[in-house]
Amino acid sequence: MTDETRRNDGRSQTRIVLDVDTGIDDTLALAYLLASPEADLLGVIGVYGNVTAETAVRNNRDVLRLFGRPDVPVLHGMPRPSWADCFEVDEGCARFHGANGLGNVDPKGYMGDAGGSGSGSGAGADAGADADGAGRAGGESHTFAARGRVKSVGGYRAEGEAELEEVVAAERAVRRAEAEGVKFIVDAVRRYGREVTILATGPLTDVAAAIEAAPDIVDSLRVVMMGGALTQEGNCYDLVCETNIIQDPEAANRVFRSGADVTMVGLDVTHQCLLTRADAQVWRDAGAARGRFLADMVEFYINANEDADPMFLAGSPLHDPLAAAVALDPTLVQCFDINMMVETRTGDGHGFRGRTIGDPTRLRKPRKIAHVALGVDAERFVPQFRDRVASICR
Amino acid sequence: MTDETRRNDGRSQTRIVLDVDTGIDDTLALAYLLASPEADLLGVIGVYGNVTAETAVRNNRDVLRLFGRPDVPVLHGMPRPSWADCFEVDEGCARFHGANGLGNVDPKGYMGDAGGSGSGSGAGADAGADADGAGRAGGESHTFAARGRVKSVGGYRAEGEAELEEVVAAERAVRRAEAEGVKFIVDAVRRYGREVTILATGPLTDVAAAIEAAPDIVDSLRVVMMGGALTQEGNCYDLVCETNIIQDPEAANRVFRSGADVTMVGLDVTHQCLLTRADAQVWRDAGAARGRFLADMVEFYINANEDADPMFLAGSPLHDPLAAAVALDPTLVQCFDINMMVETRTGDGHGFRGRTIGDPTRLRKPRKIAHVALGVDAERFVPQFRDRVASICR
Repeated sequence: MTDETRRNDGRSQTRIVLDVDTGIDDTLALAYLLASPEADLLGVIGVYGNVTAETAVRNNRDVLRLFGRPDVPVLHGMPRPSWADCFEVDEGCARFHGANGLGNVDPKGYMGDAGGSGSGSGAGADAGADADGAGRAGGESHTFAARGRVKSVGGYRAEGEAELEEVVAAERAVRRAEAEGVKFIVDAVRRYGREVTILATGPLTDVAAAIEAAPDIVDSLRVVMMGGALTQEGNCYDLVCETNIIQDPEAANRVFRSGADVTMVGLDVTHQCLLTRADAQVWRDAGAARGRFLADMVEFYINANEDADPMFLAGSPLHDPLAAAVALDPTLVQCFDINMMVETRTGDGHGFRGRTIGDPTRLRKPRKIAHVALGVDAERFVPQFRDRVASICR
Repeated sequence: MTDETRRNDGRSQTRIVLDVDTGIDDTLALAYLLASPEADLLGVIGVYGNVTAETAVRNNRDVLRLFGRPDVPVLHGMPRPSWADCFEVDEGCARFHGANGLGNVDPKGYMGDAGGSGSGSGAGADAGADADGAGRAGGESHTFAARGRVKSVGGYRAEGEAELEEVVAAERAVRRAEAEGVKFIVDAVRRYGREVTILATGPLTDVAAAIEAAPDIVDSLRVVMMGGALTQEGNCYDLVCETNIIQDPEAANRVFRSGADVTMVGLDVTHQCLLTRADAQVWRDAGAARGRFLADMVEFYINANEDADPMFLAGSPLHDPLAAAVALDPTLVQCFDINMMVETRTGDGHGFRGRTIGDPTRLRKPRKIAHVALGVDAERFVPQFRDRVASICR
C-alpha cells in the first residue's frame, strides 16, 4: 500500500482538469470541486458516457452557472469511443441518471435565487464550440463511415445500425473535441506537468486521444480516474466489467499501458462510500435553490440505485465525488501499486473485454505505475463531502 | 497489507495436513515439505483435480516412499466436486501434468537407490482404504444417480454423460473420503485448533466437506490454499477463473464464507515464482535417483508451460510449492485482507461462475477474514525452494 501525497509542494491549491460524462454523481463531483478551496479548476470537458457529449457539455455549463462559476472554461470532449463510429446512450445509464443526465431535473429551473451570472448561453466560458477543426470532417466522413458504421450503445457494439448522418455528425464532433477538449488536456500537461491532475470520471477516450496526439506528455501525465474494479465485482457484463471502462476498453488499456501515472478509483472503494437521503436533506435544508436542485436530482439517483440492487438500500455510491476527493487528497485511500491493463478481447486465452486487471507481461517488473485504491477512509470522506457541498448550498 | 506471522509460539514446527490433487507442482510442494525441518506433516490426503483421487493417493504414496517417508499417513479425499456425481480429468490438466500426474514419469522406476522402505503397497501408512463407510454406498447410489448423472470434466459440466457404474463408484469413494480424508481434517482441527494448518493445493471439496460435517471446527480452522486469482488473470474460462477453483466453485465459496481463516495463494503471486531448467539441473546434479525423478518430471511441466504461453518461457510457475512455503513462513508474502467469495452463477447481475472476488455483502464489514497474497518475495523463495529440495536429492 502506498500513502504517497500528491499535493503540489508549496501550493495551497491543486490544479484540476475535469473530464466528465455529466450524469448525477458526476455533477456531485463538480459541485464538490467548486466547494473545495484547494481545487483550482482549470476547465471542464464534457465527454460521452452517461449522456452524449453534447448533453455533458450543456450540463457542465448549466451547473457551473447555477453555482456561480460561469468563468470556468467548458470544453467539448469526444462524442464516441475510439472503437466506434458513433454513440448512443444505453437504457441502463438513463435509468440511473435520467434522460438529461441530471435525474430529469432541469438546473435552469433553479436559477432564480442562485448566484449564476445572469441568463444566456454562458458562451463567454465556452472555449471555441466552433473551433477551426470542427468543420473539416465533411470531406472525410464517407471514408470513415465506410468502415462499417459501428455504433456503441453504452459500450455494446451495434454493427450496421448507425445512420450515415449520425456518423458524419460524430466525425465532426470528434474534430471539435480534438481541437478543444483533447487539446486542452495536452496544453495543460505541457504547461504544468505533474502540477496538474487530469481527473477523468467518464470513459478514458479523451485522455487516450491526448496521449496519441502528444506522446511527449506521458512522462508528466498524472491521471486520477473513476472506473474499473479489481477486487470487487463490476456493474455490467456478468459483473466482470465496470461501466466507464466498458465504454472504451481500448482507450483505457492505452492509458494504463502508456506509462502515465494513473490512480484508479474503482468500485473497490466507491461502493464503500454511500450517500443517503439524510445527506441530501442537509443540502435541501441549507435553504438555497442550489441545494434543492442537488437534493431533487439525487432523489432520482437514490431511487434508481435502490431499485437496482438491495446492496444500495444502505445508500448510493459516491463514485465520481470520491475520485475528485482523491485528486485533492490522496490520503483518503490506500492504494495497491500494480501494472494494470484492460482486456480488449473475450475468449479462452484472451480474457474478457472490458475487464480491468493486472498486466501479466509486466507482473514481475519492479516498477509498478498504477495505483489502485483498495481501501478508503469512508468515515472521513462522506461527511466531508456532504458538508463541503452544503457550504455552497446556502 | 498484513505481514502477520502464523508460526506457533514456542514450537519449532508447524503442523500441516496436506490436501493435494497430486500433479507435478503438487509433488514439488510435497517434496518441499519433506525437505523443510519446520514442517510436521501429519498426513497427505489425495483429492481429484489434476488427476483422479485414486491417482493422487497412489502418487502421494509413491513419492513418500521414494523420499523415504512411508511413515506419513496417506488418505483418500473426495473423488468428485460437490456439484457433480462423478469426475473425469480434462485434457488440459493432462497436458500440464501428464496422464499419471507426474509427467508420465513413474517414481517406482527410481526407487533402486532411494531411501524408500522397501517395496510393497505401503499399506502401513494407508489409514483405512477400506474404512467402514466405504461399502455403504451401494444401496444409496441409485437415488444419487437419479439426480441426473452430472459429470465434471475438469470443472466443465457434462450432463447425462456419466455411466451408472461411474456414479456408483464415485458414491462409494465419497463415503470412503468422508470416513478418511475429510474425517482426518476434522480430527486434526478438533485436536490442534489453530496449531494445525490445512494446506489445500487442489479443489476445496474436502475442506468444505469437513466444515459441513463438523461446523464446530470453523472458529479454529486455518487454511492456506493454492487457488484463485484476484488482481491477475486466471488460467481458464476467458482467463476469469483459476483451475483449482473452477473444479468446485460451490465448495470454495462455502470455505470463503464460512468464517474460517483462509490465506489465498493465487496466480497473483505464483506467477511471480518461476522454476527454470537450471533449477531442475541442480536436483539432477545432486546425484541421487530422487533428483533425477524430480528433474525428469519437471521437464514435462516446463515443456508444457512453454508450449502453453510465451509468458512461461521465463520459467514455470511454482503454484503449490509457494502455498506450502507460505504455510510454513507467512512472511514470504504480503497479503491484502478482504472478505472473499466465489461466484457460482454466470450472467448479468449474477457474476461469472468460478471467479474469486470480494464479497459485496461484506465489503463494508470492518473484520476482513481472508488474506489474499498479492506480493511475494520471489527472490527469497525460489532459491530457498530449489536448495531445500536439492538437500533431499543427495
